[in-house]
Amino acid sequence: MRICLLLFLLAARVASAQPASPLTAQQGNVKLTVALDAEGRPTYAVSYRQQSVIKPSRLGIKLAEGPGFDGPLTLLGSETKDVDETWQPVWGEVKSIRNHYQQLTVHLRQPQAPGRRLDMVFRVFADGVGFRYEFPQQPNLKYFVVADEVTEFGLTGNHKAFWIPGDYDTNEYPYTTSKLSEVNNAALVKASTAIAVREAPDAQAVQTPLMLKSADGLYINLHEAALLNYPAMQLHVDPQTYQLSARLVPDATGSKAYLHAPDHTPWRTIIVSDKATDILSSKLILNLNEPSKLTDTGWIKPMKFVGVWWEMQTGKSTWNYANRADTLTEAGQLIPHGRHGATTANVKRYIDFAAKNGIPGVLVEGWNVGWEDWFGNWKEDVFDFVTPYPDFNVQELQQYAAGKGVQMIMHNETSGSATDYERRLEPAYTFMNQHGYPAVKTGYVGRIVPRGEHHDGQWMVNHYTRVAETAARHRVMVDMHEPVRPTGLHRTYPNWLASEAGRGNEYNAFSDGNRPDHETILPFTRLMGGPMDYTPGIFKLRNYSADATRRVQTTLAKQLALYVTLYSPLQMAADLPENYEKEPAAFQFIKDVPVDWDDTRVLEAEPGEYVTIARQEKGKSNWFIGAITNEKGRATTLKLDFLEKGRKYMATVYADGDGADWQANPEAYNVTKTTVRAGAKLPLRLAPGGGAAVSIIAIP
Amino acid sequence: MRICLLLFLLAARVASAQPASPLTAQQGNVKLTVALDAEGRPTYAVSYRQQSVIKPSRLGIKLAEGPGFDGPLTLLGSETKDVDETWQPVWGEVKSIRNHYQQLTVHLRQPQAPGRRLDMVFRVFADGVGFRYEFPQQPNLKYFVVADEVTEFGLTGNHKAFWIPGDYDTNEYPYTTSKLSEVNNAALVKASTAIAVREAPDAQAVQTPLMLKSADGLYINLHEAALLNYPAMQLHVDPQTYQLSARLVPDATGSKAYLHAPDHTPWRTIIVSDKATDILSSKLILNLNEPSKLTDTGWIKPMKFVGVWWEMQTGKSTWNYANRADTLTEAGQLIPHGRHGATTANVKRYIDFAAKNGIPGVLVEGWNVGWEDWFGNWKEDVFDFVTPYPDFNVQELQQYAAGKGVQMIMHNETSGSATDYERRLEPAYTFMNQHGYPAVKTGYVGRIVPRGEHHDGQWMVNHYTRVAETAARHRVMVDMHEPVRPTGLHRTYPNWLASEAGRGNEYNAFSDGNRPDHETILPFTRLMGGPMDYTPGIFKLRNYSADATRRVQTTLAKQLALYVTLYSPLQMAADLPENYEKEPAAFQFIKDVPVDWDDTRVLEAEPGEYVTIARQEKGKSNWFIGAITNEKGRATTLKLDFLEKGRKYMATVYADGDGADWQANPEAYNVTKTTVRAGAKLPLRLAPGGGAAVSIIAIP
Repeated sequence: MRICLLLFLLAARVASAQPASPLTAQQGNVKLTVALDAEGRPTYAVSYRQQSVIKPSRLGIKLAEGPGFDGPLTLLGSETKDVDETWQPVWGEVKSIRNHYQQLTVHLRQPQAPGRRLDMVFRVFADGVGFRYEFPQQPNLKYFVVADEVTEFGLTGNHKAFWIPGDYDTNEYPYTTSKLSEVNNAALVKASTAIAVREAPDAQAVQTPLMLKSADGLYINLHEAALLNYPAMQLHVDPQTYQLSARLVPDATGSKAYLHAPDHTPWRTIIVSDKATDILSSKLILNLNEPSKLTDTGWIKPMKFVGVWWEMQTGKSTWNYANRADTLTEAGQLIPHGRHGATTANVKRYIDFAAKNGIPGVLVEGWNVGWEDWFGNWKEDVFDFVTPYPDFNVQELQQYAAGKGVQMIMHNETSGSATDYERRLEPAYTFMNQHGYPAVKTGYVGRIVPRGEHHDGQWMVNHYTRVAETAARHRVMVDMHEPVRPTGLHRTYPNWLASEAGRGNEYNAFSDGNRPDHETILPFTRLMGGPMDYTPGIFKLRNYSADATRRVQTTLAKQLALYVTLYSPLQMAADLPENYEKEPAAFQFIKDVPVDWDDTRVLEAEPGEYVTIARQEKGKSNWFIGAITNEKGRATTLKLDFLEKGRKYMATVYADGDGADWQANPEAYNVTKTTVRAGAKLPLRLAPGGGAAVSIIAIP
Repeated sequence: MRICLLLFLLAARVASAQPASPLTAQQGNVKLTVALDAEGRPTYAVSYRQQSVIKPSRLGIKLAEGPGFDGPLTLLGSETKDVDETWQPVWGEVKSIRNHYQQLTVHLRQPQAPGRRLDMVFRVFADGVGFRYEFPQQPNLKYFVVADEVTEFGLTGNHKAFWIPGDYDTNEYPYTTSKLSEVNNAALVKASTAIAVREAPDAQAVQTPLMLKSADGLYINLHEAALLNYPAMQLHVDPQTYQLSARLVPDATGSKAYLHAPDHTPWRTIIVSDKATDILSSKLILNLNEPSKLTDTGWIKPMKFVGVWWEMQTGKSTWNYANRADTLTEAGQLIPHGRHGATTANVKRYIDFAAKNGIPGVLVEGWNVGWEDWFGNWKEDVFDFVTPYPDFNVQELQQYAAGKGVQMIMHNETSGSATDYERRLEPAYTFMNQHGYPAVKTGYVGRIVPRGEHHDGQWMVNHYTRVAETAARHRVMVDMHEPVRPTGLHRTYPNWLASEAGRGNEYNAFSDGNRPDHETILPFTRLMGGPMDYTPGIFKLRNYSADATRRVQTTLAKQLALYVTLYSPLQMAADLPENYEKEPAAFQFIKDVPVDWDDTRVLEAEPGEYVTIARQEKGKSNWFIGAITNEKGRATTLKLDFLEKGRKYMATVYADGDGADWQANPEAYNVTKTTVRAGAKLPLRLAPGGGAAVSIIAIP
């Protein structure tokens, strides 16, 4: 009998120990150096065009028991390999992705007993570096607990940073743009009462993706890829040295991760360029994720949707059916207050609207019992995910939607009770299958159960993966709200189409809202990890709430542009049907804009200032452009050199109208049409807080 | 529409405020007094025959937020009622149980805002008192977190205590008999390395049921009843004042319980008598539990069983199939080591033995994949509960057992990973239904997942209830190992037949074992809350282990007697078939002894010394007696006045043989037969560490 001894293979691999001189790997302008420092501890450094990006910085893992990998280590050997491959995503911003890197693997060992071994694996791309810790199978490291990760990112100066607080439970803060030396989240965390759950014990900690810009114009993005079975990494900022240090979100006992060799951490990613547009074009994070685990993906269909949702956010109707769960009729029934949003009749109105306008999906929130008393009490048993309110007829709506060619999108709000959701997952997804729901929006508003766990800790990271896997078994697409921020896992789980995991348009409904620069920062931060269900498309930009101070801090045209600049294969047309019906000319863009693409060109970008992106519709020659700016107006001229040569196109420009301004006159827009060809120049004028959307349709 | 306002009803109930003089309730010799102390805090006291049992002692609940019920309270009113009812258990020690008590309800309110209300409900029985905290529905107390319970038990002297350490995760310690002033568990906890998980931060804390004996001969038992949705209560002992204080097992965050008014705590129980036998006969705890939640109980059948188990405990075979999970054949298969116990052939041997001897059930452990690497690493994913090892043929054994009229008992070891078990509950119980398993033995060996939770905390208490409820839906009987200790819930969930939750016979296999007094203490402690799956019936009392020092510290006859003295509707014949086949004369008692009873008489008892119990077989006139002693030999004469008058019986006495002694000659026994009638005297001689078993079969 032949026995497969992984150990033997590993031993052979590391036989040829190399000298202790620095190890290097390079791809294009990016160069990596790995060395042991004077105390024998591993360090790495990254440069871009001979310019230092990351100064020599420590690597290491502290274990809860016994000697870890945070002290001196002996170099056993190393090897490099070059990989150049191309793969096709199931859906995405481009139809084909090149994965081209040089890999350096460094084999290390504790010099003293028990002589545990650690491999550091680095992948150097033309636009950055990814590295992770790998724990090979070995006699003296089997199950182990990560007490801390000591990964450091030694930055070279007091860079400008686009950051949100390093919170264990939320990514929904507004971004702060400041020098690294000014990072302090305490006041913002305290003031952010619109965020349901906040836990940010370190005032100097920031969330990733962290976007940085150096004084000499280098753009640096720090994040992670393939976050599986490990807590999210946050970064502690040293305001004097500009050194960032990994901080892992703890579990209920204060430990960070429970691993079992052979095992590895997620990839730590450093994307760097002297062009901001390169950051947005980078496929480094996706490339560091594993290929799709799903073999049959034909059922996965990116889609637009409307929903019974914004009317609740703005107070026109409610998620709940009754005011109180503990006051019942004599027959033990809830007492309806009459303002419930998810009624059969109201949902039919949305279905009609979707059918009429070619919007494939209708999301309905507040359809199931439990909303009278769902949130804020750390309850474990809240929803059962299968019992509708008495005024929501599942069967009738299933038939009605099917008859109109519209698909219903399920809503599973867990209120953070992940244990209870896991108990009910199979019935919940079976219910979706039985009633024709191809997609589900999940939610985690509230403190997590198991109590003591956090949204971004290892246990919940594994929970989100379990949900995605369960959904895949049931052929259901997932859109997660309030999960850990994405790290490119949509490559591995292509049915996990989108996440919120950031400050969405909804904050305009119930808080001071999102500043005009917000959407120019999101692509450089939150969206680096994956698609965001931002819910754009608000047309009624003020006077939508009982609180007259509430307003969306963009122009209407900018709302249209977001369908292109904020990439997602699930895009909501978030406003009310009646608001869209008042502006059919503008709504035409939402009807036309696709959600899946063959190509993407980031034409212009500067974090916090502006973003202009052109995308080619999947399987077609049509292009769509979105251009947005912050609070400052902006004029630009785009060169349409990406169009097919010799072909004629009809360009429809949805632009801010004369005198448009997010504060004084957000609704003004105009629509103009012109024929264009490759190489044509397209001038755009963006109002303060404004934007422009362009459809460029190939003329047959 | 008429609206059911619970609030209104409560308000009406407390309208008639009473004077602030002490409130009392009494039943027989037991008298309760409730009063507010000088600081306005509620206190209670209990006396028995005018003798103080509990001195005036504080009551109270500390809340995590806002003012709780641990300070001064105002008396709003009180009322008493008398209840005398009789009910029939689905199975049990007796066929009918009288529930006779006087209830005193005391309505209290915080004197200051928010004026939260608390009800104290006391039930006074002839053999003790039960009381609980009730939180009525009210405007200013909805969801709340219990930070601590301040219930105190002021004992009147330095009583003798029979105790085990107050450990959050285990009840498997040997008992210590000491004065209250001598309670200190530190050394014992440290030394008890045979117990997988220990967490006993308070050296002065003891577990309940706690058995006490006062210097003037009063027997006092402290425990709780109906432990649902609340953590287990342990008791902190003040060695100077002899005051015991409630300590609730914390959750992962340090909180104790998450409640939602209207809600209540479990009952705190004080059983008292001047006769030790009364303690064992008490039905107070069962009476404080709610009636059966199951309406159809015909499928619940108490049963005896053998099992592929002791051969693993003693090292003859193994639970696992291979030595390592990480060393596989080239085809990715486990490499069998050839000593696996749960093989199809070996299980058939047990089925044959059971069929031949009329034993209804066969338990098989180690039948499912995962045992190579199941324990000790706080793993979350361990077993799937449905995948057998390749040498265990589920279908073949199902048919084989059915053909022989034998029922298979399922084994679900969770290794403490309750989250994973909950995910897999439905498939696991469906598997049992599909393959004809009427019962399951569950296990929780290991640290709990959710990490930070404890075996005896609120989350796990709810987990055990969920398992019992799931099993009931699937018509499966449950025998839980390593759960929280029972509190009479087998009344409410009669399919939850037994638990281990204590130091079973298995400790004789892998530790220094159980002292000769152990089984004389268990009925006064662990078994006060419910049946114990102790696994008696070991015939080969030494030289069963590779470690020659291991031995069972009883005689063989005492092992027989345990079938009567340690009540359980599930009783294992734990030894190997080959050991029973060598002693057919003794084994006859195990074949004959029932597991369900119409009546029970505790004839003699003294904790730590001896226990003699007679029980009448369910639906028959036959009686069975068990008599056991500690390390001291004992002679006694039983008066058979419980037999049916005028009826002739054949009594078979399984007694210690001449010269029997647990140390020198444990195997010596003899069997004698004699006819007896009501009122006959039956002399018994128990060897040191010995016992006697008697069957008294009605002659037709």
